[in-house]
This record gives sequence, C-alpha cells and structure tokens, in this order.
Amino acid sequence: MTTLGDLGEFGLIDRLSRLLPSAPTVVEGIGDDCAVLRLFDRLMLISCDMVVETIHFRREYATPEDIGWKAATAALSDIAAMGGTPLFVLVALAMPGMCEIHCIEGIYRGLADAVSQVGAVIVGGDTTRTPGYLTIDVTVVGEAIGDRYVARRGARLGDLLCVAGRLGMASAGLHSLEQGEPQPELVRVHNRPTALITQGQWLGACPGVRAMIDVSDGLVQDAGHIAKAANLGVDIDPARIPIDPALEEYCRKAGLDARRFALTGGEDYALAFAIAPGAYEVCLTNFRREFRTEITVVGEFTSAWKGVRVAGHPADRGGFDHFR
Amino acid sequence: MTTLGDLGEFGLIDRLSRLLPSAPTVVEGIGDDCAVLRLFDRLMLISCDMVVETIHFRREYATPEDIGWKAATAALSDIAAMGGTPLFVLVALAMPGMCEIHCIEGIYRGLADAVSQVGAVIVGGDTTRTPGYLTIDVTVVGEAIGDRYVARRGARLGDLLCVAGRLGMASAGLHSLEQGEPQPELVRVHNRPTALITQGQWLGACPGVRAMIDVSDGLVQDAGHIAKAANLGVDIDPARIPIDPALEEYCRKAGLDARRFALTGGEDYALAFAIAPGAYEVCLTNFRREFRTEITVVGEFTSAWKGVRVAGHPADRGGFDHFR
Repeated sequence: MTTLGDLGEFGLIDRLSRLLPSAPTVVEGIGDDCAVLRLFDRLMLISCDMVVETIHFRREYATPEDIGWKAATAALSDIAAMGGTPLFVLVALAMPGMCEIHCIEGIYRGLADAVSQVGAVIVGGDTTRTPGYLTIDVTVVGEAIGDRYVARRGARLGDLLCVAGRLGMASAGLHSLEQGEPQPELVRVHNRPTALITQGQWLGACPGVRAMIDVSDGLVQDAGHIAKAANLGVDIDPARIPIDPALEEYCRKAGLDARRFALTGGEDYALAFAIAPGAYEVCLTNFRREFRTEITVVGEFTSAWKGVRVAGHPADRGGFDHFR
Repeated sequence: MTTLGDLGEFGLIDRLSRLLPSAPTVVEGIGDDCAVLRLFDRLMLISCDMVVETIHFRREYATPEDIGWKAATAALSDIAAMGGTPLFVLVALAMPGMCEIHCIEGIYRGLADAVSQVGAVIVGGDTTRTPGYLTIDVTVVGEAIGDRYVARRGARLGDLLCVAGRLGMASAGLHSLEQGEPQPELVRVHNRPTALITQGQWLGACPGVRAMIDVSDGLVQDAGHIAKAANLGVDIDPARIPIDPALEEYCRKAGLDARRFALTGGEDYALAFAIAPGAYEVCLTNFRREFRTEITVVGEFTSAWKGVRVAGHPADRGGFDHFR
C-alpha cells in the first residue's frame, strides 16, 4: 500500500489534480498558490491554508495571538503571490475540548489583526472540537486588480529569478527557539511574518514580471515550483541571496550557515518571481523608490536541465514537504 | 479559567462575533449558515464546514467515498439554506502520516461526486499531515440568485415553522451502526445525505418564506436558531413531524422513539423555514407539484416565550453541540 509518507505532499497534489474535473469558469485551478475563478464577469482569487499544532506551531514558542496572526498571513500571502487584493476571510478551527477560551480568543485576535492590517475582514467560519491537535484552516477570497494576476507558471528561458523580502529569518527564529536561546529579532519574523500584499500588487502590475510564488516552503523548493510549471530548470546563485544582518550574526555566533537557512527555510513569505531580463533594471529602481527595500536577482531560468541547481549543483530536497 | 466545554459552540461563536470587526461589504456575517458578501456588485455566498474523525465520522462506519461525500454535503447544504447556487469548492485536509493513498483518493472521489452532483467544482485547497485525526474543511463559494437570499433571521410572529426533507434518519442510521445492526436505508441517509440545493433555491424564490436554515444539528436546535435570530419563541408540535416508514419500523423493532430522532437528530440536511401563514397553502401545493415531496408544518413562532418548546414544554438541549 502506498502511504502519504511515500508520495509526499506534491506527489499527492499531482495525483489528486488528475482525479478532479475542472470547469470553464476555473481560470487557474489546482496547482497554483491560489485558484483564479471567473465570477460575475470578474476574476476572483481564493486560497486556503491549514496549520496544525506540533507541525506548524507550538504553544510553547508562540502566543495565541502569534498563532492566529501567522495562520492568517500564510493564507493572505497566497493572494499576495498573485498580485491580488484580499477581501474576505473564513476561519475553521478544530479545538481540543479543554482549550481555554482566552487561548481561542487570542488566536482570533491575532487572526483579526493580520486580516485588518491588509484591509480584509473575517466574515465567518466553523468551529468544532477535536480529540487531536488544534487545527486552523484560513480561507481568503480576493480579487485580481483589473483582471490581471500573476500565476506560478509563466517563466521563460533566460528570465531572472528575483526575491522581494526576507529569506531564512523565520526558520532561524524557530531554530533559536528550539535551541532554547531565542533570538528576538528572528523569533519575531518566525511568529509575526508579513504577507507582502502591496508589494505583490505592485509586482503584479510591473511589466516583465511573468510568474510569482510566495516563499512558504523555502526558496529552493518554491523556485523549483516556478521552474517546474514552466518546464524549465533554475540555477540559484547562493552568493547573491540577501542575508539579513540579524541572521548573519545569529549564524556566526552559533557556527551555522546563514545561506542554508536562506535557501531552504520557509515561512518568511518573501515573494519569488521570474522577470524578463530587459525589464529588471526599471523594476528594481522603481521598487526601491516605492518600498525603500531591494529586489535581489538570485538566479536564472534555463532549459539546460529540469529542477533546481544551487551554484550549478543539483539541489537535494531542501524545502519543507509536509509529509516526509 | 473558562474552557470551551463550559461555553459550548454557540456561546463561543457569540463571544467571537463580538470580538471581530465587520465591513460595509459584509451583508450577512458571523451568525448565519453562510456569509453573504457584496463582490463585484453582486451577492456572493461563502461558508465552510469542518469535520473531524471520531467526532463527525468513523472509518469503520463509512467508506472513504462516504466520508468525502458527507463532508461536501455539510458545506453545500449551507448554500442550500440561503437559496443560493454553489459554484466553487476548496478542500483542506489534515491527514495522519500513515494514511493510505487509496483512502485519501476515495475521500476526494466522494467530495468530487457530491460537488459535481450540484454543478459545482473543486478548485483548490490545502493538504497537510497531522499527528492527530483526519480533519476535512470544505469551503463553498456560491451566488445568490438575482440578489435574493434567505437569511436565518427574518421570522415574524405567527409564522409557521415548516420542514422540507427527512428528519431523524441519519441519526437513527448512526444508532443502528453503533448497535452493530446497521439498517441499510438509514445508514445510507447517514453516510450519503443530500444537500437540497434545488429545493432551497425554489423556497428562496417562494413568496412568504422569511427565514431558513439547514437541519444539521437537529430540528429543536436549528428551529431554535431561527427563533433566536428573530427574538421569538417557537412551539414544535411533535405529532406533525413527518416520520419516514424506515425510521418508524427501525424504532418500533428496537423499542425506540422515532419522534425523538426526528426532533433532535442532526445531519439529514433537511431545510427548516419560517413562512407567512397566508403563503403556506400555495407554497405547499406548488412545492409538491415541483418536487413530488411534501412540505410539513411542524410548528409556529410566538412571542409568548423565547426558545424552543415541544408541545408547549420547554425543550431541553436536544441538538448536537460540538463542545459539550
């Protein structure tokens, strides 16, 4: 018998997507961050993200507010990766019966804060008890701006792989918690990541941006998704990956490789995108003017191979696969 | 410390809804079966329903296909209760790591069957592993027909409480499974309930239908929700409740009270609604012509008390509260 452990999350999604019928109103279906749907002659975006205690969070490492905030951010970030605007949020919560109400209310406060921050609103959901672990599923409905969105597929040969936002800080924050020596600046990114909604919208409108994804599972894995969707390979140059000074310092003191966190650590919710080489300079300049932060070129798409290489060497599976 | 067990599901929802902000685009928010949202100048409906192994289903009582079918039906039924049309479905699944892939595929087949049956389509979702129990959250997006929908609130003094569909069969089916003497006709209703989408749409367009809910937690509890939302009481006449012959026979043989199943058993996904007394006759006649099944008057809304009475006696909490 094949188990989920054998197949992995992405193997499962491949199998399921072959099982399920589609429809003409489904513009982008299973296989992207977010579904794109034709509704009332416009483009609606919808995505959900489910987190489970002990797999995605631990109550000893995060406050209830942090847990709610992060669960919302994970789902909102999928809308950011399409260049869309989040509007409405549903929250389904499965709770152990002995959960204290102040914990549940804290989770909802964190959810509501993250959702309000981006101008969206929680409109409903479901609650149930569970004999298992606290489980939160957040569904976000959004809209595409002017019927334009950026899919995961769309990268072309020779496109540059770019990153907006931080890499590796969230996973280093978790590492510091697990070591019992929490590094506040990194822990904050781990517990309170930001969905780059405005940046995503800006990039979605930027000429030459052809494919985008949010870095939830690590750059190697998520850049691999863009490459796979385009039937291309990608080469990541680790020397070009931006390393935050706090991450650098933590790794230096602990004798760890900052670049490894930046390559494989998930949950910073940076945006990785493919851009036409000729469009890059203008995009960088204008992005810097708009957001006072950098976009960094970290690699290039190629037809010379499939999958991800780091400095030319095939990357072993370095991301976070939920079943392995 | 207050726990969920102390507060109950509906106490929790009351507290949470006070915590969460709303917005002008939210036409109906937390507290109905389904949120009603203004999107692109039309009315969108959205609802989710989460089920957890051992709480809502057991693998020894149902096939994977049954589990998927029923999870989808529970969510679709919320759209039926608004008189709407389901369009798009997201599925989030938390799975124990050792789950066999054929079980997961069976669940998705069941989900897809129930969703296709009503003309909707699965467009995405999320998958994760869990150290706990199989958990499925189904989100349905729908549209209101011609900007008309029927909310849970809206019943008026003197309105009749009516039911379309079966009552008590699903819970009797579960009872027969638990007794080790499965009664096939009842087990079928338990495992393969139908979301009354067409009937809900028809009732939503029927003059005089003022409030509607799907009977997921039992007639006593769900009629109580309609009454509470209207700040009224309701008197249920148990003698008028329709009892299916299969339910009657099962209870006669087992020495059980069929009316108790019909009053308090959930998950048949019948529709309970409030109708103006003057509109009832025409509605009944036309519904019978359209669907070849009956609508039954089972009670009346009153201002003489709050809450639910059965044959004039205050009903003890007879429904299914997920936390108690």
